[in-house]
Amino acid sequence: MASNTTGEIFKVTTFGSSHGRALGATVDGCPAGLELTAEDIQEELNRRRPGTSNLTTARDEKDRVEILSGIFNDKTDGTPITAIVRNNDQISKNYDNLKNNPRPGHGDYCWYKKFGNYDYRGGGRGSGRITIGHVIGGAISKKLLSLHGITVTAHVISIHNCKTERKFTLDDIKENITRNNVRCADLEKAKEMEDIILKAKSEGNSVGGVVEIIIDNLPVGLGQPVFDKLDGDLAKALMNIGAVKGVEVGSGFDSTFLTGKEFNDKYYVENDKILTKTNNCGGILGGMSNGMPVVLRIAVKPTPSVSGIQESVNLENNTASSIEIEGRHDPCICPRVTAVAESSCSIVLADHMLRAGFIHPDKI
Amino acid sequence: MASNTTGEIFKVTTFGSSHGRALGATVDGCPAGLELTAEDIQEELNRRRPGTSNLTTARDEKDRVEILSGIFNDKTDGTPITAIVRNNDQISKNYDNLKNNPRPGHGDYCWYKKFGNYDYRGGGRGSGRITIGHVIGGAISKKLLSLHGITVTAHVISIHNCKTERKFTLDDIKENITRNNVRCADLEKAKEMEDIILKAKSEGNSVGGVVEIIIDNLPVGLGQPVFDKLDGDLAKALMNIGAVKGVEVGSGFDSTFLTGKEFNDKYYVENDKILTKTNNCGGILGGMSNGMPVVLRIAVKPTPSVSGIQESVNLENNTASSIEIEGRHDPCICPRVTAVAESSCSIVLADHMLRAGFIHPDKI
Amino acid sequence: MASNTTGEIFKVTTFGSSHGRALGATVDGCPAGLELTAEDIQEELNRRRPGTSNLTTARDEKDRVEILSGIFNDKTDGTPITAIVRNNDQISKNYDNLKNNPRPGHGDYCWYKKFGNYDYRGGGRGSGRITIGHVIGGAISKKLLSLHGITVTAHVISIHNCKTERKFTLDDIKENITRNNVRCADLEKAKEMEDIILKAKSEGNSVGGVVEIIIDNLPVGLGQPVFDKLDGDLAKALMNIGAVKGVEVGSGFDSTFLTGKEFNDKYYVENDKILTKTNNCGGILGGMSNGMPVVLRIAVKPTPSVSGIQESVNLENNTASSIEIEGRHDPCICPRVTAVAESSCSIVLADHMLRAGFIHPDKI
Amino acid sequence: MASNTTGEIFKVTTFGSSHGRALGATVDGCPAGLELTAEDIQEELNRRRPGTSNLTTARDEKDRVEILSGIFNDKTDGTPITAIVRNNDQISKNYDNLKNNPRPGHGDYCWYKKFGNYDYRGGGRGSGRITIGHVIGGAISKKLLSLHGITVTAHVISIHNCKTERKFTLDDIKENITRNNVRCADLEKAKEMEDIILKAKSEGNSVGGVVEIIIDNLPVGLGQPVFDKLDGDLAKALMNIGAVKGVEVGSGFDSTFLTGKEFNDKYYVENDKILTKTNNCGGILGGMSNGMPVVLRIAVKPTPSVSGIQESVNLENNTASSIEIEGRHDPCICPRVTAVAESSCSIVLADHMLRAGFIHPDKI
Repeated sequence: MASNTTGEIFKVTTFGSSHGRALGATVDGCPAGLELTAEDIQEELNRRRPGTSNLTTARDEKDRVEILSGIFNDKTDGTPITAIVRNNDQISKNYDNLKNNPRPGHGDYCWYKKFGNYDYRGGGRGSGRITIGHVIGGAISKKLLSLHGITVTAHVISIHNCKTERKFTLDDIKENITRNNVRCADLEKAKEMEDIILKAKSEGNSVGGVVEIIIDNLPVGLGQPVFDKLDGDLAKALMNIGAVKGVEVGSGFDSTFLTGKEFNDKYYVENDKILTKTNNCGGILGGMSNGMPVVLRIAVKPTPSVSGIQESVNLENNTASSIEIEGRHDPCICPRVTAVAESSCSIVLADHMLRAGFIHPDKI
Repeated sequence: MASNTTGEIFKVTTFGSSHGRALGATVDGCPAGLELTAEDIQEELNRRRPGTSNLTTARDEKDRVEILSGIFNDKTDGTPITAIVRNNDQISKNYDNLKNNPRPGHGDYCWYKKFGNYDYRGGGRGSGRITIGHVIGGAISKKLLSLHGITVTAHVISIHNCKTERKFTLDDIKENITRNNVRCADLEKAKEMEDIILKAKSEGNSVGGVVEIIIDNLPVGLGQPVFDKLDGDLAKALMNIGAVKGVEVGSGFDSTFLTGKEFNDKYYVENDKILTKTNNCGGILGGMSNGMPVVLRIAVKPTPSVSGIQESVNLENNTASSIEIEGRHDPCICPRVTAVAESSCSIVLADHMLRAGFIHPDKI
Repeated sequence: MASNTTGEIFKVTTFGSSHGRALGATVDGCPAGLELTAEDIQEELNRRRPGTSNLTTARDEKDRVEILSGIFNDKTDGTPITAIVRNNDQISKNYDNLKNNPRPGHGDYCWYKKFGNYDYRGGGRGSGRITIGHVIGGAISKKLLSLHGITVTAHVISIHNCKTERKFTLDDIKENITRNNVRCADLEKAKEMEDIILKAKSEGNSVGGVVEIIIDNLPVGLGQPVFDKLDGDLAKALMNIGAVKGVEVGSGFDSTFLTGKEFNDKYYVENDKILTKTNNCGGILGGMSNGMPVVLRIAVKPTPSVSGIQESVNLENNTASSIEIEGRHDPCICPRVTAVAESSCSIVLADHMLRAGFIHPDKI
Repeated sequence: MASNTTGEIFKVTTFGSSHGRALGATVDGCPAGLELTAEDIQEELNRRRPGTSNLTTARDEKDRVEILSGIFNDKTDGTPITAIVRNNDQISKNYDNLKNNPRPGHGDYCWYKKFGNYDYRGGGRGSGRITIGHVIGGAISKKLLSLHGITVTAHVISIHNCKTERKFTLDDIKENITRNNVRCADLEKAKEMEDIILKAKSEGNSVGGVVEIIIDNLPVGLGQPVFDKLDGDLAKALMNIGAVKGVEVGSGFDSTFLTGKEFNDKYYVENDKILTKTNNCGGILGGMSNGMPVVLRIAVKPTPSVSGIQESVNLENNTASSIEIEGRHDPCICPRVTAVAESSCSIVLADHMLRAGFIHPDKI
C-alpha cells in the first residue's frame, strides 16, 4: 500500500529513483503567501549533494531543481508545489552483476519479494538518492518554520569510535558545522573523524556514527497526545532514513540509569516564561513540546556498500552466490545525513504547527 | 488535530481517561471470520492490570472488558469491534492540590497550554491507564497475527544498572518471563531487579530500564519503503508509549562502532530458505522485513510520579510553587510496559500484514 | 478496508448494528471547551427515533444515550467523545427465514459476498439503525457549528407524486416542520403526504420522496478545491445515507435547461457584503461556499422492506427462492431521514470549518 | 487543508494550474507489473484535449505527456508514477481586466477569500485545465481495471432541451460516441445537439446537459458500507468535477415516483450467476456493487464563461463593477466532460478494487 506521502495537513509526496528520469516532491497543504524561490530549495539540496568533498561518493550530480507548480507572483498560492531534479550522471553498467544477487545490507531482497522486481541499477527507489524528495519538502518546511523563528540543526557527534564530549551553544554548533566536511561542532574531533572516514574509504570499507538534532523555539503544546506524539512522529521520520538504526530523545537510553527524582526536570520561571532546570525529557512531555529545546540523537549505521566480494544468494534458484559492488559510494553517510535529518524533522514540525493551529492552513 | 486513531487499514481508535466513565477502543478493519471472545481480550488486559504484584501501583482495578459490537455468532463480522472497560477504583481527592501546579515529568503543563485544561485527577488522557485501549487493540491484533504464526514477545533486559548479559532462546524467554514479576528471562537477574524496584519503592523513588521486543515468523517484504517503513512505524508506536525515551533496532546504537564489512549480514540458504548469518539489521532492510526475527529495544524512563515535595509552577500567575504527589503509582513501569509494547507492535504488524496483502481485508 | 470513520480533522467513527449490544460513535478532534451534555445528543436522537408517530416502524426503542468519555467539568476536554445507545427491543425471531435468502432492495447479498456473512436479523450494520452513530456525531457537530451561527435544516418537499411548489422562508421552514409528522413546511401538502404514506402502509407497500437541506450562515471560502470540494463532500455524505439515490445542489438537474447567461448568479453588494441576485449555484462555486445559503436536494427511494412474497435466491445453492419480510418497518423513511441528513451534513461542515481554520483545532 | 490527493490505497495527487509551467499527477499505490507507456496516457489525454473540434475552446494545447518516474523495463515497478504535461499556448493578456473583479459562475471570489489570492489568468488551479491530472490518474486506473474486464463509459444523453430517449446496448454506445463530436450514442440527436452548441457559441452563450456513466463487469461486493460506499465515493468524484451540479444512480430522482414493490429489483439466477430483472438500484445496494452494471447520471451546468458585460464586484473596495471575459472558452463542456467523468470514476474504482482485495496491493 502506498507510502510515499507523509503528513496530515502539510503533505509531502515524493517520487523518483536512482536511475529514472527525475526525482522530486509535491508539497500539498503549504499555506498561500510564503515567499519561495527555486534558490531556497537549491541551497538545501546542495548540502545533501554528492561530490562536494572527498568524504562523499564520486557520483557528480548537479541536482538543479525546477519548480513546476504552486508559485504565483513569487509566493506560494495555496496549491500544490511540485519540484523536480533530473538524473544525469548515471553509470548503469556498474550494476549488471547484481541483477539476481541482492546486496547484503541493502533492501534488494525485500523489494524483490514484495514487488516482484528490484532495480539493480543502484537501488532504484531504495537508493539514498530518493532523499532529494525529502530535502525539497524540508526546504519548504524550513522556510515556513522560519516565520516562527524555529530552527532545526543536525550535527555529527561521533564517527565510529571517535566522539566529541564537549558541549557547545547552539550558535556555535550552527557556525562550526559549516567549517568542516564532517559537520561536527568540535573542530578538533572533526579532523580525527575525517581521518577515520578516509581510512575506511581507502580500505573499501565504511563507518557509521551518531548525529544529534536540536530544534529551537518551538511553542509549548506542539504534538498530539496518544498516537501522533511529537517524539513518536520525529522518531518515525528519523528511523525512515535509510541508515538509521536507533533514535533517542533527551537523555534517551541513559535515562534508564537515573531515578525518577534525578530524571524529573524541575520547573522554574524566568522573565515570565516557564522553563526547566534540566532537559532530561528532551523538550517533550506527554508527546508535546514543553518549550525547552527538543534534542534527538540517531544512530547511523556504516554504509552497506563496501568493496570486495560479499556472500549473497541467487534469487532465481535459491543458491549461494557472491557479488562485488563496483559503484561509487559514500564511506560514511553521516555528513550528508545531517541535511536529510533536518529536512525530515522540519516536515514533521511544519505539519504539527498546522495541526495545532499555530499556522493557518490557507494563508500566512 | 485528532490523533486517537492508528493504522491505515487495521484502524484502532481509543478513548477514555483515568477518571471518566470508561476507557476503550474501536477496531475497524479487522476481517470477518476471526474467532474472538471477551476472554481473548481479558487475558491481555490482565497482563497490564495494576495491583497484581508488589511491584505495581496499589490502585486495584478489575478491568473487566465488555465487547459492544462487531461480533456475530462468536466471530468478527467485518464491522467495527468496540470494547470497553469501566473505571471503578478512583480516589480523586488525592489529586486536588495539583489543580494549577503541573507535575514535573508529566505532560500536565503541555496539556494545559494546548487544550486550555488538564485533568489533574491522575492525568486524564495523559495517564498510563489509557493503554487499556492499546491492549484491547493489541489483543485483537495478536489473535489475527497468530493465524500466521507470528508472535510478539517483550521482556525486560535491564532495570536501572542491573542488566542481563545472557542470551536466551525465544522459547526460553516466553517461558521464563511468566515465572517472575519483572518479566525478565534471566531468573537470577530478575531477583536483583525486583530488589532494585522494591528499594526505589520504599524510598518513594522510581527506576527505569530496557525492554526488548522480539517478533517472530514475519513473512519477507512486510513494511512500506520510504515513509511507512516497518522500523519507522514500530519506532513510532513504541515511542508513543508514555515512558519511552529511545528505540533501537538490531544492533542499534552499537552499529556505529562496526564497519560496513562487519555490519553487513551475510546471506546463506538453508532448507531452501534465505537467511543471514548475523542479524545486525534486526530483521529489517530498506524498511521491510527480511525474514529474520525483528528485534527492537526501548529505553523506559523512571516513573515521574515520585514522593516528596517537587518544584512546580502555578499556572494561574506564573510563579514558582511546589507540589507533593500522593496518589498510588508504580515504582517501575517496565514490567507492565511489556504488555503495552507487545500490543503496540502487534497493532502495527496487523496493519502492515493487511497493507501488504498477506491478510485479506474483508474475510480471513 | 475499514470505512467506519469520516472526516479529516473532526473525525467521527461509528460502530454497532441492529441486533448487537450497543450502537455508538466516537468523535475525535472536537476542540476542548465546548459545553456538551447527554441531553444535547438525546434531543437529536429523539428526532430519528422510531415509534414516535404512526408513520414510522413500530419498533419501540427508547434510544437513551450514555457519554463514556471526553467530557470534563461539563465541557469537551479535547479528547475523544464516545457515546453509546444500547439495543433493547429486538425481535430476532422475525428474521430467521431470511438466513440464506437475501432481501431485494437491501444490501444482504453484497454483504454476503464481501464478508462471507450477513446479519439476517434486521440487516446488522446494513440497517438504518446504524444512523444512531451518525446522529450522535451530528449532534456534537451542530453544537460546534452553532457557535458560528450556522444552521442545517432538512425538510420534505415531496412524497411520491405529491410535491410542494410553495417557497417558504428559512424561519418558516424551521417552524412548520415541527408541526407535522412528515416534516414538510407546507402544512396543507403535509396532510396529503401523510395520507399517501398511510395508504402505502396499509397496503404493505412503501413510498419515497425528496428532502431539501438548507445550510445557513457559512463563511465564504469553506471547502477545499479539487478533491474535497464542499459539494463533493456533502454529496458523498448524503449519498452514503442508505436510501438516497440522487443528490443535487442549487438548480441541480434543472441547470441543464438554462444557458450560461441565465445560470450565472450576478454579484451585488449590500451593506458591504457581497451577495448574488440568484442562487443557481446553490451557495457553492469552485467547490467552496460563496456566502449564499447552501441548498441541496436528495432523492429518497421507497423503503425496500415491503410485505408479501418477494423473489430471492438461495445463496447456498444459487437457486431461485422467495421470502416474506415480517419485521416492523417504515412505510416511508423521508421524515426520519431529515434528522440523518442534517447530521451527515453537519459532520461534513464541522470538519471543513476546522480544515479551513475557522475553528481552532484544540480549543474554542 | 490539503485536498489534492484522492484515494485510500490507489492514491492520485494532482498539481499544476492553467498558467504555470506544468500540470500533472502522481499515482502512488499502483501495483508493480502493469504494462504502461506514455502512449497509454496520451490517448486518454487526447480525448479531453481542447482544440479538437469546433465545439471546444480555440486554445490549442498539444498536451504531450512525459512520465518522470515509476516505470522500470516498461512496467510499473510499485513506486510512484509521476507524469506531467507542460503548458504552452497561454495568452495571459486576455485576463488582466479580471484582476480584482471575480467572474460570475467561477470560483474566483471564493479562492480570493480563502487563499488571499486568485489566479486571474484563466482560473489558475480553479481552471478546467487541471483535469489533465485527473485524466493521467484515470488512464492508469483504466489500464489496471482492464485486467479485470471492467470498462467505464460516459456518453452524453442530453444537451440543453434536447434529450435522447432511445436505449442502446453498451457496445453500441461505445461505438457510436466515437462517431460524433458530442459523444452521444444517438447519432440523429447528436446532430441536433451539435447545432444547439454551435448556436450558443455564435451568441457568446453556453449550454449544459446530462452525461451518463456506465460501469461494466464489476465484481460483487465492491464498496465499503457506511462512510465509503461505492455510490458515495462515485458521487463525490463526479460532483468534484467543476461543472457538475447533480448526481444520481440507477433510477435516481425518478425513484421517488415508484413504490417499494415497484422499485425493488427482483433476483433471478442465470448460468449460475445471480442477477436482477430490473436495475432500479443502478448496480449498487447497501453501498456495494451487486454485479449488475453501475449506472450514474450527472447534471453539467452551462459553462460560466460567456461573452458580453457581466455584473461583478471590485474586491479592493467592495463596490459594484463589471467585467467582460475575452478568453477562449467552450460553449458546452459536456463532450469533454465525458473523458474526465470516466477518469474520475476509474480512479475511484481502482482504489476500491484494491481496498476490497480484488487487486493485490504490491504486484499484479
